[in-house]
Amino acid sequence: MNGAEALMSVAKKAGIEICFANPGTTEMPMVMAMDSAPGIRPVLALHENVCSAAADAYGRLAGKPAMTITHLGPGFANSCANQHNARRAFAPIFNVIGQHSTWHYDADAPLAMDILGLAQTVSHWVRETKSPESVAQDIVDGITHALGQRGRIACLSFPHDHQMAEVEAEPVLGKPEPLEATDGKLVDQAAAMLKNGKKTAILLGGTALKETGLMLAAKLKAAHGCDLVIEGSFSLMECGAGLPDHIRMPYPPEPAQALMDSYEQVIVIGTKLPVSFFGWPGAPSQYLRDRDGVVHVAGQVGDSVTALDALVQGTGAAAATPSVTRLEVPGMPSGMLTPDSLCQTFTALQPENAVIVPTAVTTGRLYGPMSTKLPRHTQISLCGGAIGEGPGLALGAALACPDRPVLNLQADGSGAYLPQAFWSQAREGANVTTVICSNQRYAILQGEMTRAGLNQPGPNSMALTQLDNPPLDWVAIAKGFGVPGEVATTCEELADGMKRSIATPGPYLVEARI
Amino acid sequence: MNGAEALMSVAKKAGIEICFANPGTTEMPMVMAMDSAPGIRPVLALHENVCSAAADAYGRLAGKPAMTITHLGPGFANSCANQHNARRAFAPIFNVIGQHSTWHYDADAPLAMDILGLAQTVSHWVRETKSPESVAQDIVDGITHALGQRGRIACLSFPHDHQMAEVEAEPVLGKPEPLEATDGKLVDQAAAMLKNGKKTAILLGGTALKETGLMLAAKLKAAHGCDLVIEGSFSLMECGAGLPDHIRMPYPPEPAQALMDSYEQVIVIGTKLPVSFFGWPGAPSQYLRDRDGVVHVAGQVGDSVTALDALVQGTGAAAATPSVTRLEVPGMPSGMLTPDSLCQTFTALQPENAVIVPTAVTTGRLYGPMSTKLPRHTQISLCGGAIGEGPGLALGAALACPDRPVLNLQADGSGAYLPQAFWSQAREGANVTTVICSNQRYAILQGEMTRAGLNQPGPNSMALTQLDNPPLDWVAIAKGFGVPGEVATTCEELADGMKRSIATPGPYLVEARI
Repeated sequence: MNGAEALMSVAKKAGIEICFANPGTTEMPMVMAMDSAPGIRPVLALHENVCSAAADAYGRLAGKPAMTITHLGPGFANSCANQHNARRAFAPIFNVIGQHSTWHYDADAPLAMDILGLAQTVSHWVRETKSPESVAQDIVDGITHALGQRGRIACLSFPHDHQMAEVEAEPVLGKPEPLEATDGKLVDQAAAMLKNGKKTAILLGGTALKETGLMLAAKLKAAHGCDLVIEGSFSLMECGAGLPDHIRMPYPPEPAQALMDSYEQVIVIGTKLPVSFFGWPGAPSQYLRDRDGVVHVAGQVGDSVTALDALVQGTGAAAATPSVTRLEVPGMPSGMLTPDSLCQTFTALQPENAVIVPTAVTTGRLYGPMSTKLPRHTQISLCGGAIGEGPGLALGAALACPDRPVLNLQADGSGAYLPQAFWSQAREGANVTTVICSNQRYAILQGEMTRAGLNQPGPNSMALTQLDNPPLDWVAIAKGFGVPGEVATTCEELADGMKRSIATPGPYLVEARI
Repeated sequence: MNGAEALMSVAKKAGIEICFANPGTTEMPMVMAMDSAPGIRPVLALHENVCSAAADAYGRLAGKPAMTITHLGPGFANSCANQHNARRAFAPIFNVIGQHSTWHYDADAPLAMDILGLAQTVSHWVRETKSPESVAQDIVDGITHALGQRGRIACLSFPHDHQMAEVEAEPVLGKPEPLEATDGKLVDQAAAMLKNGKKTAILLGGTALKETGLMLAAKLKAAHGCDLVIEGSFSLMECGAGLPDHIRMPYPPEPAQALMDSYEQVIVIGTKLPVSFFGWPGAPSQYLRDRDGVVHVAGQVGDSVTALDALVQGTGAAAATPSVTRLEVPGMPSGMLTPDSLCQTFTALQPENAVIVPTAVTTGRLYGPMSTKLPRHTQISLCGGAIGEGPGLALGAALACPDRPVLNLQADGSGAYLPQAFWSQAREGANVTTVICSNQRYAILQGEMTRAGLNQPGPNSMALTQLDNPPLDWVAIAKGFGVPGEVATTCEELADGMKRSIATPGPYLVEARI
């Protein structure tokens, strides 16, 4: 068995089932090994940011890593923006980066670059195989690190000659690093705070946003009257009827700070102490710094569920009846699409048990608050702020959850980063409904100009934030990449398009013009 | 004047005229400064790899840097593959990367990443402004480094608060580092070789491929009977009737090695000692290693023209009459398109004084040999091997040379990396004719499987190299991004489409199905 076949064999034994790939010459032994050592499903992408986006969503939803295969430093570089997003989402990914044959390093061939230095900027673990003898162990070490804690980015640079060398392959998967244990003293402090009658919020994130964590938090809310606040960007949140209602941390710093200031006490579980997305002049950087009444029970890689359970037990809340939301589907609006009626139409038609990828910050701002009373579903959001991941996330979600409908509420500006994802959606028959919120501008940036006091932007400022010249024709873009679609300008047309998509297998796109 | 306005003011004084940008929140002061300190033309791109590709071509053709503006680490990461290509092409680029406000670093906000570590992997010079006092000097230092030698990648990380701070801005542009001077002893050695009657090649690259260098080399050829061999990937080559004929270094290692072995002596000027693109098993890594009869007169950043002139003077070749090619336009083929008839049709219609971007390795393999007798033109090739740069190179070429037609002979597999470039072509009215060589596969990878002895690839290997499911509809993709186009399946249709495009201002695409 050669190194490439060992990779496939070891990865399969470690539970890896899928590989998002854009291979080149240096990766051909791995391509061929997918036939000679089969068992891992290859998914070809036309751009490496599709690979990393899809692996991000897959990792979050499947709870185990996908593999990616990319071509040397430049191929991996193309995947880095969504590797960054995946790192911030604590998604497990096992990246295998083809490297030149070791005897060719001296040549400094055209594609040569500093792969390890590059991978370091987005990864938790980086290694290059040093010899054919080390290959099998390097592979399991990489997968073990990817599986650690909530999930991490591991990168293995795999030289071409090592892929082709004969190797031994019976290594044992290591024990992945567990979640950080909770400090009992912090639980005690938080328990005392919950019982002292002061106005209290529990700020929840990370692993606390699945059903078990949310229902434990709901018991605390029912027993002690605290509020539940959800972190602004989350890796994965269960949502909808039957789960506790919650408040979302606002995106702009002033309302976020005001929200935190409205509580005498804040207990933080499963996330970091909250920070502002950007450092705006005169606005705060970190909302809970330099104040009393804050206890950080569990961080982003903390064992939130155990912490919440200890709090429930420690405060006598086990018998409390959690207050949960009831199903309340909004009525269908009518007439021309606006940002609000678009969101209302979308929520009115959201099917049962969907996976939602809400990547439309400005037009979709109402979706979050509206979503808590919809049919039960899962939301995955953009965690690293690198826009353009939505269509790739939707691809990965559909492959992780083939029996669930996937809906991508997608901005046009960010969607234009990654239209190649539509092609892989079509190729894999991914059951994705994409609704493009087509406002033909970077609305968030125009908002920033207003914030900066520039009420009449000059021509260059407008040119750098408008997308209407030429207008993007999303139905043509989707068609070009193999996905059917249609234009909607009214709520009724959007509803028709969404119904058509939901009733039909495979991907479909509705360009919702507002 | 604030830091952002100082940037625009200093850059304009330093001769920068254009800025390829995809800004975000942290770059808004720079966006607004393009109006309050005007004079630099902003070009918006939907993806940062368009910015770096366009800046690459612009830098090569205009001989001075474009600026780019990208959004934090992830935005710059999206540009890295083509920064890598530009670095290998010795294009001057001045990248300005927006960074969080310095007082917000501690927050480790979602978009935070190691910008300097990332930029280091593709750049010659990297710096972050340390204070408002340093801003103006940091800007000129960056531009000075970008202008050094043949041209280099300089990256300035520019924190948001420094963009907004009041700064002084009267710094003086430094003296860019000159080309490396030629060692007279090496010239003497080469001169002796040229006169000793042995079979000799001059391997030319870099700055030797402009008219002055080529005509000097042609005198050496005429006087001494040596061959002229051109490096495989070149930054910029003047080509066509009236210039010397030449041999192109082959891409596969065996014929490349055989070509070098066929000479008793090789004189290398303006490029590195030649290496194989990849380290194939059993094939050579470096073609001129460990052998006699090689003199490396000038490297990639050497002063090739001075070296060639010294050789001409030193060998008494000044009076020689250079042998140059005569105009010989191939006849128009007819019938269904094949790779060969596609190239022939393309060359038959190539207009006078064009800039050609030949980024179609397999289908376009005949273009190079056919091009030496065409009307005079300039070719720019892919130097770093990171595929997908073509449409962005064509954009930058059209903006650097608005009075020249630009033709992009573009493979489909690599073209699918960067369709966003079409949008900027349309937006800027770039006079680009794109001919997509649509063979619906990564033909180069299928060739690699054959090379590896795999004559009947398995289903997974085929799935990872075929692009026909779904087929890419290039006319729809172009339409989606605002560029008109048509399909051609015959030579006649391709000719009609090219004529239509050449006769009409603005971009146009012909999908040539083979």
